[in-house]
Amino acid sequence: MKDSKDISSYMELLGSEAKSASEVLSTMSSQQKNSALISMAKILEEDKEEILKANNEDLSDAKTSEIGEALTDRLELTNSRINTMISGLLSIAELPDPIGSVTKLKPTPSGIKISQMRVPLGVVGIIYESRPNVTADAAALCLKSGNSCILRGGSEAFKSNTVIANSLKKGIVREGLPEASIQLVNTIDREAVKILLGMDKWVDVIIPRGGKGLVKLISDEAKVPVIKHLDGICHVYIDEECDQEKAVSIAINAKTYRYGICGAMETLLINENIASKVLPVLNKAFKEKGVELRGCNRTLEYIDISKAQEEDWVTEYLAPLLSIKIVDNLQSAIDHINEFGSAHTDCIVTENSDKASLFLRKVDSSSVMHNVPTCWADGFEYGLGAEVGISTDKFHARGPVGLEGLTSLKYLVEGNAELRGD
Amino acid sequence: MKDSKDISSYMELLGSEAKSASEVLSTMSSQQKNSALISMAKILEEDKEEILKANNEDLSDAKTSEIGEALTDRLELTNSRINTMISGLLSIAELPDPIGSVTKLKPTPSGIKISQMRVPLGVVGIIYESRPNVTADAAALCLKSGNSCILRGGSEAFKSNTVIANSLKKGIVREGLPEASIQLVNTIDREAVKILLGMDKWVDVIIPRGGKGLVKLISDEAKVPVIKHLDGICHVYIDEECDQEKAVSIAINAKTYRYGICGAMETLLINENIASKVLPVLNKAFKEKGVELRGCNRTLEYIDISKAQEEDWVTEYLAPLLSIKIVDNLQSAIDHINEFGSAHTDCIVTENSDKASLFLRKVDSSSVMHNVPTCWADGFEYGLGAEVGISTDKFHARGPVGLEGLTSLKYLVEGNAELRGD
Repeated sequence: MKDSKDISSYMELLGSEAKSASEVLSTMSSQQKNSALISMAKILEEDKEEILKANNEDLSDAKTSEIGEALTDRLELTNSRINTMISGLLSIAELPDPIGSVTKLKPTPSGIKISQMRVPLGVVGIIYESRPNVTADAAALCLKSGNSCILRGGSEAFKSNTVIANSLKKGIVREGLPEASIQLVNTIDREAVKILLGMDKWVDVIIPRGGKGLVKLISDEAKVPVIKHLDGICHVYIDEECDQEKAVSIAINAKTYRYGICGAMETLLINENIASKVLPVLNKAFKEKGVELRGCNRTLEYIDISKAQEEDWVTEYLAPLLSIKIVDNLQSAIDHINEFGSAHTDCIVTENSDKASLFLRKVDSSSVMHNVPTCWADGFEYGLGAEVGISTDKFHARGPVGLEGLTSLKYLVEGNAELRGD
Repeated sequence: MKDSKDISSYMELLGSEAKSASEVLSTMSSQQKNSALISMAKILEEDKEEILKANNEDLSDAKTSEIGEALTDRLELTNSRINTMISGLLSIAELPDPIGSVTKLKPTPSGIKISQMRVPLGVVGIIYESRPNVTADAAALCLKSGNSCILRGGSEAFKSNTVIANSLKKGIVREGLPEASIQLVNTIDREAVKILLGMDKWVDVIIPRGGKGLVKLISDEAKVPVIKHLDGICHVYIDEECDQEKAVSIAINAKTYRYGICGAMETLLINENIASKVLPVLNKAFKEKGVELRGCNRTLEYIDISKAQEEDWVTEYLAPLLSIKIVDNLQSAIDHINEFGSAHTDCIVTENSDKASLFLRKVDSSSVMHNVPTCWADGFEYGLGAEVGISTDKFHARGPVGLEGLTSLKYLVEGNAELRGD
């Protein structure tokens, strides 16, 4: 499918079928949706070998095209990662169904009764890279929240995603759900993404998870509302009133739990009054883990590492690399984060609860943390069941986006012929 | 200011000052915000004569340029309408402050504590037409929800809006709030709207309330997230199992309460089994009110009115004009509404509660009503205090947008150095 006219009509077809499927899904019972999720999990289990085989092919293609360590880490599926996908589906089946729930609002002077009902958004388009588990997680969250989805995975994971999507489709069809409830775009041509971004006739929201090229394309082309999932330039700030042992373990875990995740710490901020104590310990610990450190001028007075450039403060390394800056006080830390961060996830390590409160209130990020490493930023860990992405927008949904982020509310107004008069 | 370079740097200035103001507002106490709202109300009261004078000038300009009855109705301020603005400000001061409220989420397996804090969006841009009361309502809702605002009113209400905005500014400055918390764009050049739509560096959301020209401009130019406020093509469906007296009074009120509001009924759907009974009564009542009727072919068999064209089903008249269609059954009514409506507000009149439930669930509109006229669609009437618009989007906020629609949530994550392991 190299002709852009072919792609265009193919995408139109995906869109219109997704819309029809979403109408069916929107009033489907929780039981039907849960049966479908359980059936999807079963078939993933049955198709495990086939999925691993396809993933191996993707991995060897990746070696040839040298996509880098972070992407390769994200791309790789293991038996245990597939089991995580399967248990993810089953745990989404067990989550309460948000759709159809009605919340009464307070009585109005006129006597008319107002309430709000939770409803699906409709058709969700998801554009992602590398991680094939997104295919299952995203499809399951969309399904449970009564939305159909159009998935566009990365070219490097095309074979893995194709097999996974087919397994999922087998699962829903077996339970009588429309096949078009879950659709994977069957071309790696970037033109398809462009078209998807403009299909406001069929698509209600786009959730992109990807690099800067994708973000640029979105800001140029998107007509459909977007839940953006941008860089994770995450900070840990070690306050002078911290427990030093906690501070070191939090910093190490925030960086090294997994380098390729968006919640990985990229810049460490240290209060000047504690720098001389913690920096040598951190330097030793990071060296043992093989993490390269880059410091501001004041940091270089304490430990022998290379000098950080301006650009380091705005870089998402996704690699064993960390920038370190010494700051005067809490406010300087907050200012640095709000200026150079990406409003994703930032943490303060302190035993002073007033300082913690101030940090949590003033740092303008989707997740603000106290005494826990930034790598916890994850919908599953937050109890959302799974996440379809981590929104760095403030609009609609912020932070890990689970079921509720994929829904909207409509007003129900009930009365007995109350009339409105001037 | 005719040079587009001048407009561009003027708008940049508005944007950066609004951003700074929003940072101050975001952590301001409820008491400070409420004092400012009360002070704004006081000064509107003091400046009443001046506001009416400016409004009179706008009204006589409007006569010259013949903007039509609906727009003139929206434009006109009376003593009583200014009092409504004032009491609107005072009632917003009395509403609970959404900002800073924290909701705990359920315990997580890891032991880290997750909660969500309600925070402002930041800078809200509002583009509106005609109705000068929007200036006060919108500014007050933004202020209470911790947001600064940039207001762009219609050219026909420029003088009224300028005086109102100045009064509001006097009110906030008197209470020590940043003057740039409320800014009115001081040019009627459309270029300013274009620039506003692209200022994603400074503006967090745009709320447009206007005609089709504005909607087109937005879909072409908007880089900033938009809460759309499109047409109100509202329907009343009279079911065969209705109370006929209620049905007639609801239909009359839905159309005639005020022709110029977006909640006014534009199409009346009538079940075929009751058409012969209600149509003559309705015909007489609407004639008395001076409403012109246009009917489908089946309607013309019962009453002598002009024939509706295809285009009538998708027209927001905002005038004493109504289209009438006879439908076979409930499902045909739902189908008509979902196909031709604008997902704004639609009502069923029936005494059968099962039919009502089905209608409320299946009609895909921001407000779905049972036995009350569509003209109730209004944030104040819903108990939101006031509204900044009625969203026909499903994304972020749907239906009347009050305080909560102008906020977002951020995750707070608290723990005791719990580490994440594979």
